[in-house]
Amino acid sequence: MGLWYDEEHAGISRIGLKVERTLFMGQSPYQKIAIVETAALGRALLLDDTWMAAEGEERIYHEMIVHPALTTAPRICRVLVIGGGDGGTVREVLRYPEVERVDQVEIDEMVVQASQEYLPSIGTAWNDPRLNVLIGDGIVFVRDAPAASYEVILVDSSDPVGPAKGLFSESFYRDCHRLLVENGVLVVQSESPFAMRREHLNILLTLKAVFSEVHPYYGPVSIYPGGFWSWAYAPRGVDWRQPLSERMLAIEAESEYYNRTIHMAAFAQPNCVQRALVA
Amino acid sequence: MGLWYDEEHAGISRIGLKVERTLFMGQSPYQKIAIVETAALGRALLLDDTWMAAEGEERIYHEMIVHPALTTAPRICRVLVIGGGDGGTVREVLRYPEVERVDQVEIDEMVVQASQEYLPSIGTAWNDPRLNVLIGDGIVFVRDAPAASYEVILVDSSDPVGPAKGLFSESFYRDCHRLLVENGVLVVQSESPFAMRREHLNILLTLKAVFSEVHPYYGPVSIYPGGFWSWAYAPRGVDWRQPLSERMLAIEAESEYYNRTIHMAAFAQPNCVQRALVA
Repeated sequence: MGLWYDEEHAGISRIGLKVERTLFMGQSPYQKIAIVETAALGRALLLDDTWMAAEGEERIYHEMIVHPALTTAPRICRVLVIGGGDGGTVREVLRYPEVERVDQVEIDEMVVQASQEYLPSIGTAWNDPRLNVLIGDGIVFVRDAPAASYEVILVDSSDPVGPAKGLFSESFYRDCHRLLVENGVLVVQSESPFAMRREHLNILLTLKAVFSEVHPYYGPVSIYPGGFWSWAYAPRGVDWRQPLSERMLAIEAESEYYNRTIHMAAFAQPNCVQRALVA
Repeated sequence: MGLWYDEEHAGISRIGLKVERTLFMGQSPYQKIAIVETAALGRALLLDDTWMAAEGEERIYHEMIVHPALTTAPRICRVLVIGGGDGGTVREVLRYPEVERVDQVEIDEMVVQASQEYLPSIGTAWNDPRLNVLIGDGIVFVRDAPAASYEVILVDSSDPVGPAKGLFSESFYRDCHRLLVENGVLVVQSESPFAMRREHLNILLTLKAVFSEVHPYYGPVSIYPGGFWSWAYAPRGVDWRQPLSERMLAIEAESEYYNRTIHMAAFAQPNCVQRALVA
């Protein structure tokens, strides 16, 4: 049978999945965490009643937050991931043999533990010896870390409310900029361009105060508000238009969604976004 | 206050909008028709309890079903629209001054009448003298119409169940092919590539049995299953890669979503679709 669980957006629209059973439910110091079995998309993670990832559709989001940066940065030895407690982002990062070390800073240990136990199909790389999981606040971590420590930084956060709020501030972006080497790239998840247009544009404008260029890119994520999501690519001297062929060939051979053509296409800006950024 | 109205997909996922009041409810010989006022997206049309179009988000769908064909076909004097009873598709077609005549064949008169009365912000071109609305079965119309009558045919149908089923058959596509001039284009809405993957691939393969090339293209439509939609571009000798500059400039200046970059990007095929089509 199952019961509907609906995530409401501003109390006026909602996305629901039929839930067959609850596998985990907990309250951490930061948020409410649930892992449920859905009829449509397999096991799914909710944080504060918001759909985060589901086995049946998580690949697009995780491919899109990782590969545009990882195929274009000339060196990718040291990668920093902020957030991403379900393990999908580090899984995609660790597909690159050139990656020597991934530091993942996740504030909520309970998310990592519950995901390790109940979402093993998403987090398949927890045991990779190159992965260094640190439980802590990403804001403090980037403030204290030495300059030029990473070639790529990926911010796989939840929405800019609750524990993730500080991950959308100018001072956080300034620390990320300092932590990046020359020819490094920062990518952040940047909300829905339609359902959360103001938040999306704010993220781009805040990044622009710190980085000399910022390029939003887009892709479908069915369980997020509006079904269409964005990420922002903020480079220090890297060109998103130039993915490295050898890396791209290896990655696209095993991806569900991402390939070279999708990479180039994802950076197309809807007219309404283009106009808002020029204005 | 308002009540939730949820469209369910296969009983396992759903998209809901809060409905403040019902403006129209009717049962035609073909389907149940409702027009409601939603809190999130203004007035919205439902056919057989399925979200079809809402004032607050219909522009992307209608721009995407129309402009890729209309910016690329060398001549666009005579256009045939099958379905599209809410009026959004013909509105976009009639933005082109070169269009001399649009024949719109819609099976359900009640959809047209209810849309004319309750959705005037979507159907803004009903009174254009170039528009010729015919109430009738699109399948019969294309069977009986003379060859080489149209430069562009757009099939803006509902899903391949109920009254629209025959609009997805090989014989229907064969008639469309016959009705097109050389250097003409057929575009059909072709379902969700993820939430309705089998239907999407079936449409592409059926079109391929008739047209020498078929090019799917993609875009976000938040109230449709999966939030991400597709259309299929089936040309007779027209290249989707070559939109005409002058037409494109005029159209992109006034569009919400569509522009030249989006046009080129929309044809990028997700890896999983590309693989399924090659296999």
